[in-house]
Amino acid sequence: MRTLDWENGAIIAIDQCVLPHQETVLHIDTVEDLIAAIQRLAIRGAPALGIAGAFGVALATRERMRNGVLDEAGVRKDAERIASARPTAVNLRWGVEQTLTVLAGGPEAVVAEARRLMDEDDRRTHQAAANAADLITELCPPRPLRLLTHCNAGALATAGPRGTALGAVFELAERGHVEFVIVDETRPLLQGARLTSWELARAGIPHRLCVDSAAASLMRRGLVDCVVVGADRITANGDVANKIGTYGLAVGAAHHGIPIVVVAPESTVDADLTDGALIEVEERDADEVRRVLGMPVAPETTETFNPAFDVTPAELITAVVTEARIMGPRTVPAGRAG
Amino acid sequence: MRTLDWENGAIIAIDQCVLPHQETVLHIDTVEDLIAAIQRLAIRGAPALGIAGAFGVALATRERMRNGVLDEAGVRKDAERIASARPTAVNLRWGVEQTLTVLAGGPEAVVAEARRLMDEDDRRTHQAAANAADLITELCPPRPLRLLTHCNAGALATAGPRGTALGAVFELAERGHVEFVIVDETRPLLQGARLTSWELARAGIPHRLCVDSAAASLMRRGLVDCVVVGADRITANGDVANKIGTYGLAVGAAHHGIPIVVVAPESTVDADLTDGALIEVEERDADEVRRVLGMPVAPETTETFNPAFDVTPAELITAVVTEARIMGPRTVPAGRAG
Repeated sequence: MRTLDWENGAIIAIDQCVLPHQETVLHIDTVEDLIAAIQRLAIRGAPALGIAGAFGVALATRERMRNGVLDEAGVRKDAERIASARPTAVNLRWGVEQTLTVLAGGPEAVVAEARRLMDEDDRRTHQAAANAADLITELCPPRPLRLLTHCNAGALATAGPRGTALGAVFELAERGHVEFVIVDETRPLLQGARLTSWELARAGIPHRLCVDSAAASLMRRGLVDCVVVGADRITANGDVANKIGTYGLAVGAAHHGIPIVVVAPESTVDADLTDGALIEVEERDADEVRRVLGMPVAPETTETFNPAFDVTPAELITAVVTEARIMGPRTVPAGRAG
Repeated sequence: MRTLDWENGAIIAIDQCVLPHQETVLHIDTVEDLIAAIQRLAIRGAPALGIAGAFGVALATRERMRNGVLDEAGVRKDAERIASARPTAVNLRWGVEQTLTVLAGGPEAVVAEARRLMDEDDRRTHQAAANAADLITELCPPRPLRLLTHCNAGALATAGPRGTALGAVFELAERGHVEFVIVDETRPLLQGARLTSWELARAGIPHRLCVDSAAASLMRRGLVDCVVVGADRITANGDVANKIGTYGLAVGAAHHGIPIVVVAPESTVDADLTDGALIEVEERDADEVRRVLGMPVAPETTETFNPAFDVTPAELITAVVTEARIMGPRTVPAGRAG
């Protein structure tokens, strides 16, 4: 399954806002529309944003061509707007910057470079997922596993075909090592309920959806062997920015002596940042919390905290697994829970 | 504010399912309707369920009176059905059993006893809240506090006038000791967003709503001085059953060295149970998770875990505060967070 691609001069992408009940394919042929799609999270997931950013430069290149002459300064201006459409996922800027390196070659060179990045990302993601599956097998008891995941780090988050954290789950399921997957629904935008459940249901992998706040209690009840998640940005020291709620899972996992494994391509690592305190965390609109699916659930005057991400310090993460390396594994704490 | 009362032979109660956007008053005059209202959570909150149970026996007594003769066996059958309408909150059965002790006195005696329980519960709840406010002041730094609460332990949960955990918040706010209250939205049924925000907005207390999974991250960012929650059942050793998510908050609070205080009337203490492992935890319908406000958010075939409550062991709770005593305070751990 490829969830994002380039066809006839446009980005083709599944609209992640309306899944699982509508499978709508977006046809995005302007920079404006791409930025809007990224900001409303129709396209989301750190690796997928990298590829969208790369093809975004291709869109800009087409728009900025006049009488056979490319307005390179204009393209770079558009590229900057795309790269900053969302502040936390480093891959978006990475994809934009990679394609800008071939700008002198014109539109066709840019599209070719974006395609190359996409294919390379597929290979890298697949390798990272396989590495994570191996590590999880080593870390966990030798029985079909109960894995817990948060948000969506599947095909939808990576442009395909199987994703990072969810790619590891698929790999383990193929090896017969999955009893079931616990899916955090992932408020406010319900990517776990809407997207991860949809991907697991399509693949026929047994899964159980729960509200986010139930995760710690399920750990205590012995229903979680390992937590496996993706990442939006990883700093040089191994701190991880990921969907809001990841940090709480890491605290819970440490308390219960359960490993937590982060799976991401190297493009998610921001070597320029020494640690997570330097990561800008996007604060999103209050109505994402005050409303659910557009329907009001709280007084209109109620203020919110709505950080899209949190930052988990490296010492709470068992391992960060990429296509190229394993940062860790740290010893899983013995667990303080009764 | 009284959110549940008895008028002209019927229970009058605010419908908690449609708040905050509709303030509908239910007029419940049959046992059948009361059980339905309790099961769909139109009436909820452990102390409020106790009072509803008491007036439920009054309804049964009216229904079971034929030609001036009371069918006591029939009343006891109805009473058992009311008491078991929800399994976790011990107060429901307590309220039923208290009023059954005066059954021989006939309908008027039963109503009088239910009213007496309600008034007594008001006094007890108010005293518990004041005790908790005193303790929180001792435990926390001397500055306007940032308090985090989960679900709704306010007037709506106690039949009025201010609630247990939220009663403590109101008390602290009157003393000028509240900077703001962080309100967990409390999926799946959003009692935090819908009910607690509504109560705080009415009282003009500054508050910020967040998704449940953000709580740990807000603790790490220094935005939480104390967690304050209610309880559905407290065992003899101080273990606490409360809304799903409470356990995760307690794990997070311990990790960050933040006190967590449980506020409840003594009627919530189930001295017959030695510890929390014996508490029956209600597993509710999968569609509460698969749907939000009735709208589907996950594939129909997706299974769920949907426990309504979790059990927090006493060692993770700083103190349980009732009108009569403080179980604790345990020393707040120094905090392991960076």
